Amino acid sequence: MLIRDVSVLQSGQILKDRDILIQDNKIVEIGRDLKVEDKSEIIDGRGKLAAPGLINCHTHAAMTLLRGYADDMELKPWLENKIWPLEAKLNEEDISWGVKLACLEQIHFGITCFNDMYLFPDAVAEATKEMGMRAFISGVVFDMRPEFLTGVEPFVRRWKGDELIIPAVGPHSAYACSEETLLKEKEIADRHNAMIHIHLSETREEVDGFLLSKGRSPVEYLDTLGMLSERLAAVHCVWLSENDCRLLAERKANVVDCTVSNLKLTSGIAPLNTLLKWGVNICLGTDGASSNNNLSLFEEMKVTAIVQKNAYHTPAAFSAEQIWRLATDNAYRTFGLDMGLKAGALADLMLIDLRKPWLCPETNIISHLVYSMTGGVDTTIINGRVLMREGIIPGEEKIMAGAQKRFEDLVQRR
Amino acid sequence: MLIRDVSVLQSGQILKDRDILIQDNKIVEIGRDLKVEDKSEIIDGRGKLAAPGLINCHTHAAMTLLRGYADDMELKPWLENKIWPLEAKLNEEDISWGVKLACLEQIHFGITCFNDMYLFPDAVAEATKEMGMRAFISGVVFDMRPEFLTGVEPFVRRWKGDELIIPAVGPHSAYACSEETLLKEKEIADRHNAMIHIHLSETREEVDGFLLSKGRSPVEYLDTLGMLSERLAAVHCVWLSENDCRLLAERKANVVDCTVSNLKLTSGIAPLNTLLKWGVNICLGTDGASSNNNLSLFEEMKVTAIVQKNAYHTPAAFSAEQIWRLATDNAYRTFGLDMGLKAGALADLMLIDLRKPWLCPETNIISHLVYSMTGGVDTTIINGRVLMREGIIPGEEKIMAGAQKRFEDLVQRR
Repeated sequence: MLIRDVSVLQSGQILKDRDILIQDNKIVEIGRDLKVEDKSEIIDGRGKLAAPGLINCHTHAAMTLLRGYADDMELKPWLENKIWPLEAKLNEEDISWGVKLACLEQIHFGITCFNDMYLFPDAVAEATKEMGMRAFISGVVFDMRPEFLTGVEPFVRRWKGDELIIPAVGPHSAYACSEETLLKEKEIADRHNAMIHIHLSETREEVDGFLLSKGRSPVEYLDTLGMLSERLAAVHCVWLSENDCRLLAERKANVVDCTVSNLKLTSGIAPLNTLLKWGVNICLGTDGASSNNNLSLFEEMKVTAIVQKNAYHTPAAFSAEQIWRLATDNAYRTFGLDMGLKAGALADLMLIDLRKPWLCPETNIISHLVYSMTGGVDTTIINGRVLMREGIIPGEEKIMAGAQKRFEDLVQRR
Repeated sequence: MLIRDVSVLQSGQILKDRDILIQDNKIVEIGRDLKVEDKSEIIDGRGKLAAPGLINCHTHAAMTLLRGYADDMELKPWLENKIWPLEAKLNEEDISWGVKLACLEQIHFGITCFNDMYLFPDAVAEATKEMGMRAFISGVVFDMRPEFLTGVEPFVRRWKGDELIIPAVGPHSAYACSEETLLKEKEIADRHNAMIHIHLSETREEVDGFLLSKGRSPVEYLDTLGMLSERLAAVHCVWLSENDCRLLAERKANVVDCTVSNLKLTSGIAPLNTLLKWGVNICLGTDGASSNNNLSLFEEMKVTAIVQKNAYHTPAAFSAEQIWRLATDNAYRTFGLDMGLKAGALADLMLIDLRKPWLCPETNIISHLVYSMTGGVDTTIINGRVLMREGIIPGEEKIMAGAQKRFEDLVQRR
């Protein structure tokens, strides 16, 4: 496949009028006047910007099915009266439609890979693979449902080596899993060299609870279990002490910030500047659609930038370039993905139509991507396959109709 | 004109399969199976939601020309080294292109009317009228350029009675205008029954300065001049005392909150809950594109909701329904516009394509509009004229090319 005459975003710079040659699932060459065989697919890149795919580093994809079902409630009644009762009724078929809907949405927003934690991980993996997206997928594990833990290693074995689906291990949190459970999860992750995906220090209540009952913070506690490592994606990390930040940095753990969800649930604002000072690798996630309520990383980037600027009282902090790196390079590092627009990298990328009024005039493109972007992804390519072209994903209407039907069925279901 | 088989958003409720009959610039009837003459224009509303137009209650439209030109800088060097030097070179032709670009963007986001304060107000008014948008337009006035004040009354006289352009009076702020200037502006506004558009209590420095030098807050100071009234759109109002809130409420002044701009410039978070407690009429604005950097009120609604929830520590506060009212009913009240989807109202409305994955499943539409919407406005109608259809505004490419050229010329210009 050849993308012709496109502007290429490479390490923060724009190279104009370049061609991108893709073979199988890799970028082979980026240059001028590249030649291809006659029968190769050609994509006209004029007026478009090629940017590397974004990674949604934390979501619960199937929760798109619950989008708008319950908002604006206090956390406890929201979970206990609305979310959990509905989740208790979810079956594999629901999950499949919810995940497909989430894939549609993410493909529209230029996300090429997501990190998921939810129920029925096999259904998540199958639906994601069918949609052609790349994903790190873990089945959520907590002690209230001990059978979930039993399923983890078989799941990991089943999907290990798949081209698009990378199985991971997903203990819900340090407070919902016993020490024994956490250690078992770690053992499985170590044995398979898998990522661990966990909610960590999300609320003040969680952190205060640990300090009171164990005399250490959730981060310190996980460290005593040897769980902080470069294979850890620690999600939220809103309430961290200076020592927590130091520990996360020293163990090379990755922090996933979810600003929009944290604000909507009033969990607070993560101390990104302190994390950066210690050199922690920070990346971004949208969280699930029931606490966001969309899966746009463009929106996440902007809200993160402006909220952090305001929190630290300086507009010079958290520049567009820095925020863009969180959503791209830092995320690639977290998941060990060879990405970016360069020869040899995975062909996971998007083309953005620059002929949109909110991206005009062409001044600083990175500023536009972070601060102005509100639609305009034209083409999304994952693993060398074009999944969206001119804003259209084949089969989209059918998936939306299916998801709608499952939602209506779900709320009626006993 | 007849919009057929559309879902109609009326007072927070959805009426399915209705027709909307529009004659001249008004909605005449909303009902089922409405009849029209053979030659009437018919718009197919199936799969779409009709919602009343949004009002962008504070912007500097022409600043789209400066979008992305300078970000991530401290306020003083940003203004002094970047924005002001460029603004000093602006001419009427630049303004015209910048405003047209802003109109394109706002039409895309379902905004049917905006409240503008900037240089060369005649150029702003002419470009806006040419684009077919409704706007309250004021020429900015501050003491460094005394000739601006001289132009106010002639401008107001010239545009008074226009169908789309409503002239207003725009003293920049209580700190950039002398008491004499403010009183002259008030006199003109009173004589013509015009709105007053002012930046007020935006930064802590501004408020502290007033308290130190005058012994009263900027709000209290304006009150001594008799400037707080229902014809006042007081923009920002980030740093308010309880007494300021009480005064604004008692005088029936309107407050325009610009959360995104306030965060990006690190001005702070407005005390919306205290304002609401006192019963102040609050509406929303995007501010200009150099401090936002887009003009989307959908984004503004979401960021306002989640930032205010977090600031007041309860996710139950600032519900989607409440935030939607700020962008619609409260804004109509501020500007005395007879709007909403009902017989007799102005035909200023949008059709939203509901067949977008981020708006699926159909649960709570208002929640989707506030929390999930990220593109999908299909049709925008202003004053009974269709300005955008299926996401396309005729002449769009030409305007973007023109704006691009003006920007390039501007940065080169001596």
